[in-house]
Amino acid sequence: MTLTDKLNWRYATKRMNGTKVPKEKLESILEAIRLAPTSFGLQPFKVIVVENSELREKIFNEACHQPQIKEGSHILVFAANKKVSAEQVDDYMNRIASERGIPVEALKDFRAAFDGIVTGSAEQNFVWTARQAYLAFGVGIVAAAMEGVDATPMEGFDPAALDRVLGLTEQNLGSTTILTLGYRDEANDQLVKAKKVRKSIGTLFDFR
Amino acid sequence: MTLTDKLNWRYATKRMNGTKVPKEKLESILEAIRLAPTSFGLQPFKVIVVENSELREKIFNEACHQPQIKEGSHILVFAANKKVSAEQVDDYMNRIASERGIPVEALKDFRAAFDGIVTGSAEQNFVWTARQAYLAFGVGIVAAAMEGVDATPMEGFDPAALDRVLGLTEQNLGSTTILTLGYRDEANDQLVKAKKVRKSIGTLFDFR
Repeated sequence: MTLTDKLNWRYATKRMNGTKVPKEKLESILEAIRLAPTSFGLQPFKVIVVENSELREKIFNEACHQPQIKEGSHILVFAANKKVSAEQVDDYMNRIASERGIPVEALKDFRAAFDGIVTGSAEQNFVWTARQAYLAFGVGIVAAAMEGVDATPMEGFDPAALDRVLGLTEQNLGSTTILTLGYRDEANDQLVKAKKVRKSIGTLFDFR
Repeated sequence: MTLTDKLNWRYATKRMNGTKVPKEKLESILEAIRLAPTSFGLQPFKVIVVENSELREKIFNEACHQPQIKEGSHILVFAANKKVSAEQVDDYMNRIASERGIPVEALKDFRAAFDGIVTGSAEQNFVWTARQAYLAFGVGIVAAAMEGVDATPMEGFDPAALDRVLGLTEQNLGSTTILTLGYRDEANDQLVKAKKVRKSIGTLFDFR
């Protein structure tokens, strides 16, 4: 199956059957998310991976009344940094220096490229960090399809309530989007056979 | 090669060698972007695919002084809708009805879910449409890696200048990010052998 086949196979699964995603498949999806590129490589987000059923019940009741939250195997909450701090950038510089075996001073110009971000407002920062989280979210969606795992991208939740349930605000994080992993419930999902509706090549792209 | 291998093979290519990406490979990357899921399936963005060298020269001079703009094969500019209009949503409803062979009235509840977006400010809209563009951008990055095509995700440009060069504002679009496709110039790209630096699984993910 080509990537196109895999992307045509996938759909935003509305009902899942409770089957667990095997460990190796989950790991390979998470590894793809981890390897996703982000602006400057900063990865200004965290992904909360929820399997615990009591916590899922709480998410369902308080933030997201969608059946996949309970019927899925794992819930991935993409939470972006509310503010990018100088410490976070310095820590990243130290990691690059250490992993590449170079002095951190060699990264002076690269470090300076973060000045505008670190001095930006929390609101500006979050617009930017959320975009990076969405990039990784897109990578995770493809990775799930490649593994034959169903995935539902979900924005229909109350972010403030979800942040509260998961204790994200204290961690300088805000939830942006959810990816529920699991397996389609063919008998009960009305969308299972629905034709995928997408803009045509000529409408979506502008060739110059 | 697994998806993990492909994602480890790719890197943000800083210098490209001018080799053209074959038509079939380009088409498969664009098809993946086209199939990318977006919130409600609206696809509130356009991707400008630039091959023309005069236009690339102009982009280089006026908006993005990075060598890949001239050395790459194709420049993909992800431009998100500045404002989501009621007409755009109605048009989407009509397309769903027509492609799925159902009356548009059957989509009444689904249409109502867009009310908050259509009545939102242009600023709120663009935060949301840009996230959708980044999701598709992430899908495009994976698709390029799958095809063995190098790709450079680029945010280092002047969006207002790029919008002007491409005439995007008149089209209710704002540039958000660039993906340059091409092939690495192994002799001149200092980053070609640099170790990829990513957060560890334990740092990026929070298992509950």
